[in-house]
Amino acid sequence: MVYKKIQDDGKMWGGRFSEDTNAFVERFTASISFDKRLYQHDIDGSIAHAKMLAKGGIITDIEESKILAGLEDIRKEIADDNFEWSVKLEDIHMNIESSLTKKIGEIGKKLHTGRSRNDQIATDIRLYARDQLDQISNVITLVQRNLLDLAERESNTIIPGFTHLQVAQPITFGHHMMAWFEMLNRDFERFQDCRKRLNRSPLGSAALAGTTFPIDRQYTADLLGFDSPIPNSLDAVSDRDFIIEIAAAASLLMTHLSRFSEEIVLWTSAQFNFIELPDEYCTGSSIMPQKKNPDVPELVRGKSGRVLGHLVSLITLMKSQPLAYNKDNQEDKEPLFDLIDTIKDSLYAYSQIIPAIKCNKIAMRLSATKGFSTATDLADYIVKKGLAFRDAHEIVGKTVAYAIREGIDLAEIPLDKLSEFSPLIEDDVFKVLTLEGSVNARNHFGGTAPNQVLESIKTARSNLEIR
Amino acid sequence: MVYKKIQDDGKMWGGRFSEDTNAFVERFTASISFDKRLYQHDIDGSIAHAKMLAKGGIITDIEESKILAGLEDIRKEIADDNFEWSVKLEDIHMNIESSLTKKIGEIGKKLHTGRSRNDQIATDIRLYARDQLDQISNVITLVQRNLLDLAERESNTIIPGFTHLQVAQPITFGHHMMAWFEMLNRDFERFQDCRKRLNRSPLGSAALAGTTFPIDRQYTADLLGFDSPIPNSLDAVSDRDFIIEIAAAASLLMTHLSRFSEEIVLWTSAQFNFIELPDEYCTGSSIMPQKKNPDVPELVRGKSGRVLGHLVSLITLMKSQPLAYNKDNQEDKEPLFDLIDTIKDSLYAYSQIIPAIKCNKIAMRLSATKGFSTATDLADYIVKKGLAFRDAHEIVGKTVAYAIREGIDLAEIPLDKLSEFSPLIEDDVFKVLTLEGSVNARNHFGGTAPNQVLESIKTARSNLEIR
Amino acid sequence: MVYKKIQDDGKMWGGRFSEDTNAFVERFTASISFDKRLYQHDIDGSIAHAKMLAKGGIITDIEESKILAGLEDIRKEIADDNFEWSVKLEDIHMNIESSLTKKIGEIGKKLHTGRSRNDQIATDIRLYARDQLDQISNVITLVQRNLLDLAERESNTIIPGFTHLQVAQPITFGHHMMAWFEMLNRDFERFQDCRKRLNRSPLGSAALAGTTFPIDRQYTADLLGFDSPIPNSLDAVSDRDFIIEIAAAASLLMTHLSRFSEEIVLWTSAQFNFIELPDEYCTGSSIMPQKKNPDVPELVRGKSGRVLGHLVSLITLMKSQPLAYNKDNQEDKEPLFDLIDTIKDSLYAYSQIIPAIKCNKIAMRLSATKGFSTATDLADYIVKKGLAFRDAHEIVGKTVAYAIREGIDLAEIPLDKLSEFSPLIEDDVFKVLTLEGSVNARNHFGGTAPNQVLESIKTARSNLEIR
Amino acid sequence: MVYKKIQDDGKMWGGRFSEDTNAFVERFTASISFDKRLYQHDIDGSIAHAKMLAKGGIITDIEESKILAGLEDIRKEIADDNFEWSVKLEDIHMNIESSLTKKIGEIGKKLHTGRSRNDQIATDIRLYARDQLDQISNVITLVQRNLLDLAERESNTIIPGFTHLQVAQPITFGHHMMAWFEMLNRDFERFQDCRKRLNRSPLGSAALAGTTFPIDRQYTADLLGFDSPIPNSLDAVSDRDFIIEIAAAASLLMTHLSRFSEEIVLWTSAQFNFIELPDEYCTGSSIMPQKKNPDVPELVRGKSGRVLGHLVSLITLMKSQPLAYNKDNQEDKEPLFDLIDTIKDSLYAYSQIIPAIKCNKIAMRLSATKGFSTATDLADYIVKKGLAFRDAHEIVGKTVAYAIREGIDLAEIPLDKLSEFSPLIEDDVFKVLTLEGSVNARNHFGGTAPNQVLESIKTARSNLEIR
Repeated sequence: MVYKKIQDDGKMWGGRFSEDTNAFVERFTASISFDKRLYQHDIDGSIAHAKMLAKGGIITDIEESKILAGLEDIRKEIADDNFEWSVKLEDIHMNIESSLTKKIGEIGKKLHTGRSRNDQIATDIRLYARDQLDQISNVITLVQRNLLDLAERESNTIIPGFTHLQVAQPITFGHHMMAWFEMLNRDFERFQDCRKRLNRSPLGSAALAGTTFPIDRQYTADLLGFDSPIPNSLDAVSDRDFIIEIAAAASLLMTHLSRFSEEIVLWTSAQFNFIELPDEYCTGSSIMPQKKNPDVPELVRGKSGRVLGHLVSLITLMKSQPLAYNKDNQEDKEPLFDLIDTIKDSLYAYSQIIPAIKCNKIAMRLSATKGFSTATDLADYIVKKGLAFRDAHEIVGKTVAYAIREGIDLAEIPLDKLSEFSPLIEDDVFKVLTLEGSVNARNHFGGTAPNQVLESIKTARSNLEIR
Repeated sequence: MVYKKIQDDGKMWGGRFSEDTNAFVERFTASISFDKRLYQHDIDGSIAHAKMLAKGGIITDIEESKILAGLEDIRKEIADDNFEWSVKLEDIHMNIESSLTKKIGEIGKKLHTGRSRNDQIATDIRLYARDQLDQISNVITLVQRNLLDLAERESNTIIPGFTHLQVAQPITFGHHMMAWFEMLNRDFERFQDCRKRLNRSPLGSAALAGTTFPIDRQYTADLLGFDSPIPNSLDAVSDRDFIIEIAAAASLLMTHLSRFSEEIVLWTSAQFNFIELPDEYCTGSSIMPQKKNPDVPELVRGKSGRVLGHLVSLITLMKSQPLAYNKDNQEDKEPLFDLIDTIKDSLYAYSQIIPAIKCNKIAMRLSATKGFSTATDLADYIVKKGLAFRDAHEIVGKTVAYAIREGIDLAEIPLDKLSEFSPLIEDDVFKVLTLEGSVNARNHFGGTAPNQVLESIKTARSNLEIR
Repeated sequence: MVYKKIQDDGKMWGGRFSEDTNAFVERFTASISFDKRLYQHDIDGSIAHAKMLAKGGIITDIEESKILAGLEDIRKEIADDNFEWSVKLEDIHMNIESSLTKKIGEIGKKLHTGRSRNDQIATDIRLYARDQLDQISNVITLVQRNLLDLAERESNTIIPGFTHLQVAQPITFGHHMMAWFEMLNRDFERFQDCRKRLNRSPLGSAALAGTTFPIDRQYTADLLGFDSPIPNSLDAVSDRDFIIEIAAAASLLMTHLSRFSEEIVLWTSAQFNFIELPDEYCTGSSIMPQKKNPDVPELVRGKSGRVLGHLVSLITLMKSQPLAYNKDNQEDKEPLFDLIDTIKDSLYAYSQIIPAIKCNKIAMRLSATKGFSTATDLADYIVKKGLAFRDAHEIVGKTVAYAIREGIDLAEIPLDKLSEFSPLIEDDVFKVLTLEGSVNARNHFGGTAPNQVLESIKTARSNLEIR
Repeated sequence: MVYKKIQDDGKMWGGRFSEDTNAFVERFTASISFDKRLYQHDIDGSIAHAKMLAKGGIITDIEESKILAGLEDIRKEIADDNFEWSVKLEDIHMNIESSLTKKIGEIGKKLHTGRSRNDQIATDIRLYARDQLDQISNVITLVQRNLLDLAERESNTIIPGFTHLQVAQPITFGHHMMAWFEMLNRDFERFQDCRKRLNRSPLGSAALAGTTFPIDRQYTADLLGFDSPIPNSLDAVSDRDFIIEIAAAASLLMTHLSRFSEEIVLWTSAQFNFIELPDEYCTGSSIMPQKKNPDVPELVRGKSGRVLGHLVSLITLMKSQPLAYNKDNQEDKEPLFDLIDTIKDSLYAYSQIIPAIKCNKIAMRLSATKGFSTATDLADYIVKKGLAFRDAHEIVGKTVAYAIREGIDLAEIPLDKLSEFSPLIEDDVFKVLTLEGSVNARNHFGGTAPNQVLESIKTARSNLEIR
């Protein structure tokens, strides 16, 4: 047979499967290895819950203060790496509650009154995700600030604009950078929209139906900074929309970073040679001593697949689950954690790369000159002299064909030859055919003219200010 | 060899590949077979563009009115199915422009002044998507209204609440329906967020850099009901975020509908037997005369995969494209069209199914009774008598184990036996152990108590009112 | 603003971003945190490479034996957890090579002659994946063996067969288990097909073009147990098809396990109550003392999304990369490792669960009786008496409708009533209408009759034997 | 509110939703609009079934011949587009059966004896998919043949080999083409593996449990060219693995075509300018008269997302469906059909493009010269003179740094300067530093040396021969 049979059933597959069933199931079903990342938020949630229980007379003030002190002790122990985690205790909730009871005795057993792990974990993840979205929003803003600085610095720099990776029309590098800025602007907006929907409190929904204790959900929501309690307890414990929304917004963000990366990889190739990156974002080769590879952008481009994978995994996870909580949902955390780490790192990498971009203005200019990039300007020129656009388009097509045959640029065709293609062409045409003439002529809102770009930078800056 | 070789190279693979190269490439690259769906929006965009050209003096008023009349003629022809489509003309834009020029002569060739197919198609899809989102918003609202009616009708009906598909606690059917309502509420919000971002005008961005003509982008934006022009021309022609956002919102919506469907399939099974669907949503079997299959919910459940597939396809499409427009983007339309059709149909199906749901109250009640669903109530009861929750939880665990051994429900255990498990249990316990006692006791915001459910229906109704 | 701005730029986002740029880039681009898992295979590959260099006279025999001894030392150090890993050294290759040179001096620097990290990593992953596929093949076989035992044990047990989750026809539980067996059979085959394609040697392809040293690729391929060297060096270093193939086979496997899981969750619900699982595969509730949740199957069901996510991530990763190696490819390892761990654990879980399944034969039987599951048998009976199938189908439809109205089963309708529906029905009909009659009558290859099931078990067992 | 409310509930959403419920459900659940594509295979399956029924005495020989004649009539009617399709009759099976009964009377009603639509549709799709795989295998072979011709034609042409899109080492264009050949070779193998698993017969499994009629599954399997009947009836009607396998193989194929496309788009850019494509695979611009866009490769690249989307949709579809057939499965056909069309067209496009590729040898050579692409050769040279590889690597690093500073290529550094970097460098070094020297030196199995490439072409050709 083709595969290698493993004969010794006793230790069949080495370490992994030499566990006995109980140990295996314990490990397989436990979440503590990854959900301990939530400890701050689990403790915050428990503190709010305890305060509410005390306010409602469900526990006494003395019990409350013992619970609070115990929880803060535990928080410190974990932060100092002095906490003993147990897989037997399954998850972050039971690890902390059990430690609390060891610490403060019987009173610890009262903390779980009127709640369930179902609303507790839903609360924890929302608090965690909210913090992370705020960090992400901050780092997006940082990247955007750096883009504005770069765009301003290079607002006059001419680079060929491409469609289909064919030279299309000259644009300014600042204009190009502002396209990236706009993409990140939408990303920022989307994360704010996510935040709005995730900042609602499931606490008090208990297992699925609410609780028989006289709880005050508005009070815990307020304590935890939530905008409001979630209106339906069944929905509150089974909803993972907010995680999927974050994953969708993250996938779009990574699509943008992956598009930047593609451009940086292209631009740093010897063939384009438009920009240079400092050595620290590149690595060498183990065999080819001359190589300087744009590793950081390549990796970011690759990581776009990773984040999309998490999005798919999360949607498939929820697909056709009946209400309310099912154990499947435990699988929501690892993709969320990983995608948040990934986009934070990728954004941070770009915040560092962008100020370090060095433009090779001569190479950019040369590329723009060679590709007949001002052909549209010639067509527009003829239209302004009275011809219909489609007819002008056709004339310029023939002119370009001539220039290709002759191996020269449009601006190098002598006027008498040009006027053979159309008598409307006169000697004012040459101003139109320069790169600067072309760029400056696109002088309307959103156009590539340097003064429009500077205007859009100014607006963008003040918009960032009032964020 | 295992596969069947096809020897006759002449007609190698039948019809498909007997085309000559040119015809093949024409068909392969043309989009007219699917983008003709955009004709209304293409014409609307052209009308706005022509009006702007006239306002700016780029064309004359007479030219404007001829163009407008011509376009309205074409609109009518298409609506009446009298328009002759041509694959040679590639797409909706060239089909319409070419017909216009045939109709009104040379003037038609002026329409494309100061724009490009790149900003034109971006405008068309945004207009189309906006209309579709409005339809979707309306049908979501309809489904939600029907849910409110059903929830109100069944606000007292008791059904077991499940976690892990195990009976957990009794809830009301109205409460369960309100969980569905909440999911759709978030879907509605998300589509509004999409709409906000898509309702921005790319028109005037031309190929990628803007145009040399003195255009007024604010004017066309206003004419077309856009909130504002998009600030960067490069971004405007290459951005497809809004399509991906719609696909992400649609995937979440389908996840919800797929969860409803799973529940309906379960509930209509002979084993659950909780509800009945009218015959028109079910079909029979070609072989088993007794079958009544819940086809419509099953299909909706299946279609959730279809929409997720489109989301993946769209994100992968955009991944690592350099700016600006690339031909790849032509692949954005078919998934968008199909996912919009799919969610509209699926929502419409649910708008019809929901009012038709008939509850088998006896079966629901019986299921709730049999699963020890009031065990939590017993624990809460003991806590209220003074024990810590964790200790109460343990006592009830033993009580349930006893009931299982005896084959009886908690409410059937005699008081003296109950008090053996805890002396705190007295004869007021039996009120707590009834389904109604349990449900009514969860009487706080978001809880399952009928008066809370009615309250939440009331709030929901007035929220729908002010939409 | 809605989000929380973080003012102190100095330590902007806490730990993560307080790194300086170099440390950040080092961490961001390094793979050692996860690729150290490949150490055994990296060392195996280096040993084969060194042997080949010696055989070809590129290094001396003494150099060879020093290198081999050094590598075995390192292998032991790593196994004993005495190896000092360095992030600065980026990856598993440089960590080991650097340690080798420290250990044996200058000679260590000769090991990398005639190879590159590009062919080295490609070799490592293939060796690793081959080992893992063998483990997976073994555990699939184990699950299948357990299925055969269960199917044999329950070859006579009657359970309703479902389509559309509606009772369709009675089948045997053994027959149902053999459907699961067949799915795993295809999974096994698919992993063998993957193995065939992955078991080819990239070693000797160097960076992308081969090397100028007189290497012997067949020799290293033989030493490492590869079937042959890969025929094109460019392809050899950029190909990750085999990882995607494994991910695709793994996704299908998880789809199967997820279908099993769905059935187990259904069958352990109180409403179905078809089977019982031992306590060790279930967990309790933190709030509901009566709960016994089928956690292990639920988790496996959830994990199907995780594996599909990895598949998507891997395909997206490779999408539109130009040849040959790009840094993006570093992202291939984490999904591969995680999906292999996931499927091994999930299979192992099932290998334990299957023998533990306890059938509630009475509940199964009752369900089969209640759903008119022998209606097809009645139709077939009438056909055998001479009526066309479609007409028989219609008659039975009416008979079932009558039985529903009367609240009785088909077998409970008196003969004179039955013969009103068709005079062809005589008193031999009742044998046909029993569950045993129905099941035994489907007595052909692949049918549900117990003797057919036993036959298929026998064939399956001997097929496993010769694997 | 932001969205547009539609007030008139009567005709709420125009055409789509003005249908009455019955018409809507009919359209929503019917599959005839797409499954009519299966008519040939449905008829083939029915013919085999009828022959088997006759052979087993279940129908008479006269009935058989009437059924066969009727079916052939219908086949002709459909082929001639004279068949009247009915949405009311739901699907291809009922449309054909109903027409048969109209045509030949009561006997037509006997055809469905001993089968169900569940095994019928499973048979149809397998037959259809088998035919399509054969077509795909043929067109892959055609593309491969064309690749071999191109590789042979350009076996001496030098092009820079890239890693990280940075010039790495010179290779031959023929060598590069053979990398593409190898990818397609694996694709071919994978489709053969799929074919092996799909070519098994579900016919005779009936609804899910087999049938009470004395059928002969081996006989129908033989008649239809299947390798064997599927061993378990439950599995046979619910298995859609083969569709997912095809989708996975298709996704990998499209990943390859998308990588080719990326390279073609790069190579036809003005910056690379490595190859030219004939006009018929490119299109112009509506605004920029000079553009020649590589539309066909771009579209193929984009379509890779489409096929991946279908794969995701299919896996998600099957995820956690309980056995056996569920209506969800109706959603398997449209993605299958679309992905088959997509890959056939994309392959065909490449079969046409490849022979048309024109190499710009001068530009390729120039690019290879400029990137220090022979640096590895220099390192290897020094190693052969006795230095350890790592030390040689370091020396060459310094030499390259010097050349960069001086703005010259390695081959342009004078010998006395070179020997400063290492005294081992002598005047035989210059042969090593030429492109031809570099390429010819990689002269081992799989290396880029022209004679190795020619050898691999020869082997490949004879492998294609015996396919």
